[in-house]
Amino acid sequence: MKTTVAGAGLVGSLLSIYLAKRGHDVTVYERRPDMRDTSIPAGRSINLAMSDRGLRGLEGVGLADEIRKICKPMHGRIIHDVKGNTNFQQYGKDGQFINSVSRGDLNKLLMTEAEKAGVKIHFSSRLASLDLNTATTKFIDAAGNETVDKADTVFGTDGAFSAARMALMTGTDRFDYSQTYLEHGYKELTILPVNGEFAMDHNALHIWPRGGYMLIALPNLDKTFTCTLFFPFEGEDSFATYNTVAKARAFFERVFPDALALMPEFDQEWVNNPAASLCTVRCLPWKYKDKLLLLGDAAHAIVPFYGQGMNCGFEDCTVLDQLLGESDNLAQVFAEFETLRKPNANAVAELALMNFVEMRDKVADPMFILRKKIEAKFSQKHPTMWLPLYSMVTFSDIPYADALSLGQWQNNIMEKVMALPNITERWDNLEIEEYMHSLVKEFSL
Amino acid sequence: MKTTVAGAGLVGSLLSIYLAKRGHDVTVYERRPDMRDTSIPAGRSINLAMSDRGLRGLEGVGLADEIRKICKPMHGRIIHDVKGNTNFQQYGKDGQFINSVSRGDLNKLLMTEAEKAGVKIHFSSRLASLDLNTATTKFIDAAGNETVDKADTVFGTDGAFSAARMALMTGTDRFDYSQTYLEHGYKELTILPVNGEFAMDHNALHIWPRGGYMLIALPNLDKTFTCTLFFPFEGEDSFATYNTVAKARAFFERVFPDALALMPEFDQEWVNNPAASLCTVRCLPWKYKDKLLLLGDAAHAIVPFYGQGMNCGFEDCTVLDQLLGESDNLAQVFAEFETLRKPNANAVAELALMNFVEMRDKVADPMFILRKKIEAKFSQKHPTMWLPLYSMVTFSDIPYADALSLGQWQNNIMEKVMALPNITERWDNLEIEEYMHSLVKEFSL
Repeated sequence: MKTTVAGAGLVGSLLSIYLAKRGHDVTVYERRPDMRDTSIPAGRSINLAMSDRGLRGLEGVGLADEIRKICKPMHGRIIHDVKGNTNFQQYGKDGQFINSVSRGDLNKLLMTEAEKAGVKIHFSSRLASLDLNTATTKFIDAAGNETVDKADTVFGTDGAFSAARMALMTGTDRFDYSQTYLEHGYKELTILPVNGEFAMDHNALHIWPRGGYMLIALPNLDKTFTCTLFFPFEGEDSFATYNTVAKARAFFERVFPDALALMPEFDQEWVNNPAASLCTVRCLPWKYKDKLLLLGDAAHAIVPFYGQGMNCGFEDCTVLDQLLGESDNLAQVFAEFETLRKPNANAVAELALMNFVEMRDKVADPMFILRKKIEAKFSQKHPTMWLPLYSMVTFSDIPYADALSLGQWQNNIMEKVMALPNITERWDNLEIEEYMHSLVKEFSL
Repeated sequence: MKTTVAGAGLVGSLLSIYLAKRGHDVTVYERRPDMRDTSIPAGRSINLAMSDRGLRGLEGVGLADEIRKICKPMHGRIIHDVKGNTNFQQYGKDGQFINSVSRGDLNKLLMTEAEKAGVKIHFSSRLASLDLNTATTKFIDAAGNETVDKADTVFGTDGAFSAARMALMTGTDRFDYSQTYLEHGYKELTILPVNGEFAMDHNALHIWPRGGYMLIALPNLDKTFTCTLFFPFEGEDSFATYNTVAKARAFFERVFPDALALMPEFDQEWVNNPAASLCTVRCLPWKYKDKLLLLGDAAHAIVPFYGQGMNCGFEDCTVLDQLLGESDNLAQVFAEFETLRKPNANAVAELALMNFVEMRDKVADPMFILRKKIEAKFSQKHPTMWLPLYSMVTFSDIPYADALSLGQWQNNIMEKVMALPNITERWDNLEIEEYMHSLVKEFSL
């Protein structure tokens, strides 16, 4: 089967390996130049949080161990208050962690593995048109030369602003589509090593939650941290307000003093690094007969606050590969893929939006921290009865839609528990556990 | 001021008259050929229901009386049951009516009036690009010739699939956009005159409500009725199921026998007339600085069930003209227009979706009819206290957003009234009126 993949980003590269291993004759076209030859940025955020769904996607093509070598484990969150005091919140059980990984390094490795598997990748090739009825694509390279490629089927893995998706939007009737932006954007900043060592604890993800906005930092292999400020575009505290380095620096001195002290390149980074926008994309259908299937951000771009964008895209690859193993009827596979994945894509979009409020606000609240402690303790004693929402999303393969609804069920129970008188004193008593147990049984009916 | 208007549909034509009267040097570009020269269809539905907001928009350029001449008044709905029994439901007070008008005739008249006002219209000109920073447009005509036109500002009135809007979508960051389709489509059919006269009562809009779908008919000046079947694309009773004339005819014989008997051209119309889709478009922003403003369907396409698409677009023109009269600062005018109109566009989109359920289902329910009677009686006695939702939308200039929230408030009251014991017997009693009066006072607090 002759297969075209539009987009050699993370999902496109991994997908092409899966397809090549199934015997497809795969050609990938990528809009950007080859990031292995040039020092271009890998697009969007510098590093990512790889968790179990992502690793499972890599495992399916035997690459998980290889990728683990370029990962920095993060076992929990370290919360920084304005005075620089910190508080560690473990993500899961002992030994469970998420992984900070460079988007660029991961993508380069996947592209090289794809080529080893027989995939041809053409770079600097922009998708100019896509004929849905014949799976014929036209790409234009940097010199303006056109390549027309007729395949048996096309996979659209060309990201949130997918040109393949645009073919569905303009070429078919009744294509439901929405793109919804947050009022917040993000700007990346760097914490440099101090005396050749990580400037902060490097086994965690750092958060400076400030209610309406936040700063986060993920460790890199080179002992730097990439920090991301999630900040309103407009309003009192906003990119529009702090429109000079002096104003931005004064603001950081006031609300992120410990972080600013570790950012020697703050001034030039504030000016040079863009304030980028954050978008959720929802659409349907994701397919056209047996000719086109969208995966990853092209089908369901989400905001980054649960660290699930790439993980969800890799899980798309796992699910598709499984379906391809069960049937040769591509139209049926594409339809089943959409039926299986659309509710989960909706759910993870929702979870990601919810987690922004949790990260920038709730994690600093003592009652939230207590609640997490109670949940963790109960979960440890009754692991089959209770898996905290974060763990379902991050450390399991429970479908996102199930995780979301189980999370809402847990929320109803925890609201009752947290409303008990003197919960801050009694939380560790047996009676609380027994009460929670009774609620679980009652709500399960 | 040199002004480009993209789109010479209903809203574009009316807007260009308003702008010409304000002294703008207006050039309109229209994708389709001149419908005054050719026998092309006017696009989309054949006739429209013009109500007070539309007439007010025409009044502002002195054209309301001229247009009234080509209108067919409709004073209410005539509901047809499966046996052909009919029931008349008056729309408003005596003397209030909506107007069936031919989309094509209305559009032709407006284009001719625009030209009289000094507007230049170029036909068969497709908007190929729009430079937002310079208000420079490029149009391509049927022969492939390009026209580049630099203006001071551009108005996008090019409909639900607006190319002007696409310039905002692809050329700016953080453009919120959604297009959402109904599971229903529509197909147009014709009831011909009988013995040279209207085949049915021609002072009303006819509805054959059938729960999940419906047929409607609007009278035309030539004594025909244009019927529209709103019908699911897929499922048990659907376009997909009745995919032959024989099956469709058998279905009509079963559920719309009285209508079918008046449709001598049913067979060829069923085959030749497409099943068209129904879409709601929401987006924001509608403007770019002082260079582009979207109006009408380009900014807020809605489903047709409240008959408000054109009326809302004409009200856009009224509001914009008022703002232009108050300030020369175009960027400020565009921003104010968006602030004023966006909540109303959201509300009318919602009202239109809600009214589909009312038209296809509730109008056949005796309790719904009773409720309308009670409301009408109360409104007549206390006109300052209660204006039925339909009248607010259709016979007033109350902002749509206010109509929607007042309608919800009325709904809460009417649910209490309709829940009274023996309401079907007691509805005309003074005590009911007094109870309603007390609820109005209580809910107003």
